[in-house]
Amino acid sequence: MLEELKKKVCEANLQLPEYHLVTFTWGNASEIDRESGLFVIKPSGVPYEKLKPEHMVVVDLEGKVVEGDLNPSTDMETHLELYKAFPEIGGVVHTHSTHAVAWAQAGKDIPCYGTTHADYFYGDVPCARNLTPEEIEEGYEKNTGKVIIECFKDRNPMYVPAVICKNHGPFTWGKDCFQAVYHAAVLEEVARMNILTKIVDPAVGTAPQCIQDKHFMRKHGPNAYYGQKGNI
Amino acid sequence: MLEELKKKVCEANLQLPEYHLVTFTWGNASEIDRESGLFVIKPSGVPYEKLKPEHMVVVDLEGKVVEGDLNPSTDMETHLELYKAFPEIGGVVHTHSTHAVAWAQAGKDIPCYGTTHADYFYGDVPCARNLTPEEIEEGYEKNTGKVIIECFKDRNPMYVPAVICKNHGPFTWGKDCFQAVYHAAVLEEVARMNILTKIVDPAVGTAPQCIQDKHFMRKHGPNAYYGQKGNI
Amino acid sequence: MLEELKKKVCEANLQLPEYHLVTFTWGNASEIDRESGLFVIKPSGVPYEKLKPEHMVVVDLEGKVVEGDLNPSTDMETHLELYKAFPEIGGVVHTHSTHAVAWAQAGKDIPCYGTTHADYFYGDVPCARNLTPEEIEEGYEKNTGKVIIECFKDRNPMYVPAVICKNHGPFTWGKDCFQAVYHAAVLEEVARMNILTKIVDPAVGTAPQCIQDKHFMRKHGPNAYYGQKGNI
Amino acid sequence: MLEELKKKVCEANLQLPEYHLVTFTWGNASEIDRESGLFVIKPSGVPYEKLKPEHMVVVDLEGKVVEGDLNPSTDMETHLELYKAFPEIGGVVHTHSTHAVAWAQAGKDIPCYGTTHADYFYGDVPCARNLTPEEIEEGYEKNTGKVIIECFKDRNPMYVPAVICKNHGPFTWGKDCFQAVYHAAVLEEVARMNILTKIVDPAVGTAPQCIQDKHFMRKHGPNAYYGQKGNI
Repeated sequence: MLEELKKKVCEANLQLPEYHLVTFTWGNASEIDRESGLFVIKPSGVPYEKLKPEHMVVVDLEGKVVEGDLNPSTDMETHLELYKAFPEIGGVVHTHSTHAVAWAQAGKDIPCYGTTHADYFYGDVPCARNLTPEEIEEGYEKNTGKVIIECFKDRNPMYVPAVICKNHGPFTWGKDCFQAVYHAAVLEEVARMNILTKIVDPAVGTAPQCIQDKHFMRKHGPNAYYGQKGNI
Repeated sequence: MLEELKKKVCEANLQLPEYHLVTFTWGNASEIDRESGLFVIKPSGVPYEKLKPEHMVVVDLEGKVVEGDLNPSTDMETHLELYKAFPEIGGVVHTHSTHAVAWAQAGKDIPCYGTTHADYFYGDVPCARNLTPEEIEEGYEKNTGKVIIECFKDRNPMYVPAVICKNHGPFTWGKDCFQAVYHAAVLEEVARMNILTKIVDPAVGTAPQCIQDKHFMRKHGPNAYYGQKGNI
Repeated sequence: MLEELKKKVCEANLQLPEYHLVTFTWGNASEIDRESGLFVIKPSGVPYEKLKPEHMVVVDLEGKVVEGDLNPSTDMETHLELYKAFPEIGGVVHTHSTHAVAWAQAGKDIPCYGTTHADYFYGDVPCARNLTPEEIEEGYEKNTGKVIIECFKDRNPMYVPAVICKNHGPFTWGKDCFQAVYHAAVLEEVARMNILTKIVDPAVGTAPQCIQDKHFMRKHGPNAYYGQKGNI
Repeated sequence: MLEELKKKVCEANLQLPEYHLVTFTWGNASEIDRESGLFVIKPSGVPYEKLKPEHMVVVDLEGKVVEGDLNPSTDMETHLELYKAFPEIGGVVHTHSTHAVAWAQAGKDIPCYGTTHADYFYGDVPCARNLTPEEIEEGYEKNTGKVIIECFKDRNPMYVPAVICKNHGPFTWGKDCFQAVYHAAVLEEVARMNILTKIVDPAVGTAPQCIQDKHFMRKHGPNAYYGQKGNI
């Protein structure tokens, strides 16, 4: 079942250590097959160096494991909420990448200080609030998804394909699992640049809106002109 | 004598440079065989690239070398005190890993700013006080162990398997030498994340207690549900 | 057409990831053939691991693509302006290297804190101002070149072969594309050293002028004595 | 002439990039043969990947090149002054290693914040003052040596085998060129730890004197007990 997707999701998971986004087992990637309503996700706590496509776990949109002998990632229910709330997305990634975690631990939105950020994220990357004790008790991972979704009431998740959860770390997404990994890597590099920027000037402000518009739109707008039309 | 344990301890020591936890010879790992009351430790000042199982030194709980031609690590008596005081532990590691040392040099407990920390350490990682001139004179390495143990009067060493010694560096432990190395790597990454967090917000506070409880307990509590039941 | 130059420019582009100056596709190098008035530049958005000499795009000094199936780098018009304004230069590089971007995001000139800087850049590396909304509208990439050139009204571009653009990142140049890459690597290292210097002393001042003169001139002045006369 | 020493000095120079202490050609190592009064040093501006023993330059204690087709390192006269002033030393190294340069650019002595420092350097690593315009004019590299030596009027160069020159970078030394490289690597790591310590606590103070004494002396004092007596 979904053999090609398992291979793809396994490969996306293996990109996480390759891009230096995870220590030990601290991250996971998934992708959904919208037709069948099933998604494929990394098993919980399995070291990347042992990870194979047959370990991947297939889950339905009720959160029930449909195929796979291993427990899915503990963050599975967060992925699930995102797939349900954001119908345009195809892949989700969670990591504890060092610099994005630093912003999450500080509990601050990641501001747009420059074009590197604006090339991928339109405006601040929001920091989702802490869960209440009741929300933790009621369902920690599911409600983590819910508070992420709160941040996107007035944001387009395809224009800001990333969030950081307070005192925890980043979730990113994209049209598929590879793009979600790509966005995780961009977020980490932007988070790093922005910490260094704060050392140069602790009172630094955001980039002018016209620069943010220009850079986001030349890559993602209706008249985008970055890159090539086809494949090379 | 203890040939398997020597191989294991040698391998754990070799993980220290692999995980970027040591410069030159600045670190050591040991493991105790509780049945015989003997522990195996790295020899002092031997470069990792030359280290072989037959170099390992076997020591008893009086601190007497029972086997081995080389001097044991100068930190041997600190390991010894920890094995005597904490009967649940099987392995001990000492390093000068960069970011953990920074916290030790600042003389501050490492606060729990987020879930990466809470997944492994329940509450602050304490900073043990400086030794007095008399304690240094009387037995520097033994008394280093004693001041570490002071920090655990009101802490469970299995819930906080790490300490930093003021103006010196970290000691970590675990059920065996591999887990002690694992905790040394986690501590270094957490120390790094926390320094970066301080740049984002110098006035950052700790994570809410309910988040700390949730993350520590979902991995280590009686109803832990992270990871897999068996091996894969 | 210009086959040797395409190979050279391709190789210079491949040095960018090798020197850790780019993430994903975030950088480009070009070189001009002054005789024909044509320059060779990286295509837009092509990953470095796929890049081959035949992908290079040949452009004339009107900005017209003369040869090549792919779109040139979106920054092509910035390169073009620099080639027109600075007749002594032969190569141009743009990156989003992490520490140089941090200075750009802070909107600060990079001050000369020491001899590492003075060995290559004579005085501050300037931070070019933001474009106005009108300048962005009228021609973002061309006008990026124009505001860079503004910074060199009273500076010799061969004595300061680098600039950072506010909220964006660095451009560097040199006698050819390899020297432009070399200067990009030096700029990144200097930007990194200077951020670390600010942690040691947030109120740090610039190096004495006599030291700056000495170091720049012993490498680049009429009586330079650094290095060897010929090749080894 | 001195063929074995040339091999050794070449190898020590090649350790500089291996230990991540140099960018491009920014560093040099030398060793003196005290019997003949000649020392062997890296040629100026030669990339490490091309460096061979036959490129090494032999210089006498007047600063005259005795053998070698290439110009010696521009810093040769600084090495020379150190060999003349400190008869106990056998090797000298100069680098622009990133974190040591940061302290030099800030113009601050590197304080002893902990045992990593105290294991190798007894007390602060001093920052040598800037040269006056007259001293630069009269002989920049020779007088760089002279101001270093000023710092050791009341210090033992074998107890503090390192210095940083204001707005420039570190020089280190040791019994031979390998030990000088080793000290350059220790200094860089200590400089890095200390910058991170300042982020944790900008008001951090030095380690208690009794700890500094204990650690330096257990490695270097008359009753040193770190390491092994012979070779393994």
